[in-house]
Amino acid sequence: MRVLGIDPGLTRCGVGLIDIDDRAKPTFVHVDVVRTSNELDLSARLGLLHSQLKTVISDFGPDVIAIERVFSQLNVKTAMGTAQASAVAMLIANEKELPVHLYTPTEVKAAVTGSGRADKKQVTQMVTRHLKLTQLPKPADAADALALALCHAWRGISQERIMAAARKVGVTL
Amino acid sequence: MRVLGIDPGLTRCGVGLIDIDDRAKPTFVHVDVVRTSNELDLSARLGLLHSQLKTVISDFGPDVIAIERVFSQLNVKTAMGTAQASAVAMLIANEKELPVHLYTPTEVKAAVTGSGRADKKQVTQMVTRHLKLTQLPKPADAADALALALCHAWRGISQERIMAAARKVGVTL
Repeated sequence: MRVLGIDPGLTRCGVGLIDIDDRAKPTFVHVDVVRTSNELDLSARLGLLHSQLKTVISDFGPDVIAIERVFSQLNVKTAMGTAQASAVAMLIANEKELPVHLYTPTEVKAAVTGSGRADKKQVTQMVTRHLKLTQLPKPADAADALALALCHAWRGISQERIMAAARKVGVTL
Repeated sequence: MRVLGIDPGLTRCGVGLIDIDDRAKPTFVHVDVVRTSNELDLSARLGLLHSQLKTVISDFGPDVIAIERVFSQLNVKTAMGTAQASAVAMLIANEKELPVHLYTPTEVKAAVTGSGRADKKQVTQMVTRHLKLTQLPKPADAADALALALCHAWRGISQERIMAAARKVGVTL
């Protein structure tokens, strides 16, 4: 199964792809940061982000998309841009009929490092180690996108397995 | 010129269309509220909003779109939904190559009622009067969408005229 992680943003939007085998072992596929210039007006930036994310999806054919769940952060202006970039990502998933899973930053950190309070450096280091990369993915948005994909691989898949097992024995969770 | 006003929202998204003649006289064309159920997941709601707004645009062929500018309001959760709905509207404008203008609620109220502090009731009444409607548009989102279209008709057009006049005499504003 191929997972696309998206760390939404207007200025920098991280995209990271990994493959997961039956034993939930991840393999690195691709990482990139999609950018739109803040000199463009907002609708042009959203349009550009839309076409760039669509290209990533048609180039790499993910089976599922994991996107960071947006909260109002300290910087309200950034939060609005993040919310709008995530809307673009969700819209594409809907167009392509791909399942979407949203994870909070805390869930992602916990899945990848074991601690929901890990800092960016620790997340980057653990992503590098889990995916056996020869160098640290940069910038942080790129590492975050891979961390989101890993989070889905481990957290999402195990949740789906628990649900499936529960259904099998007739338990409603 | 036909103006589409959009009051963005996930649960209720107001759409209002008016025609403007050369003397900035408005004529009512259409008003509606596009809804998406909160029982759907977020990507499905955004997808549904996208297809419904696209239908409005192909049915009525506006020349320009006026959208409410989103700020982080008191209710952060609502603000996120509003930001995402406005992203969908801007994305469609970009797809259709239609110019987009964003107006703050204060600008809209001031343009329609003469006061930036007008309440919803006053806005609805003035929209009804300006467009010679036989009944008040309901719900408030419908009236707000028409108010946005009127705001662009008066404020946007006069600004464009000022800019054009300034260019004509070689003044940079």
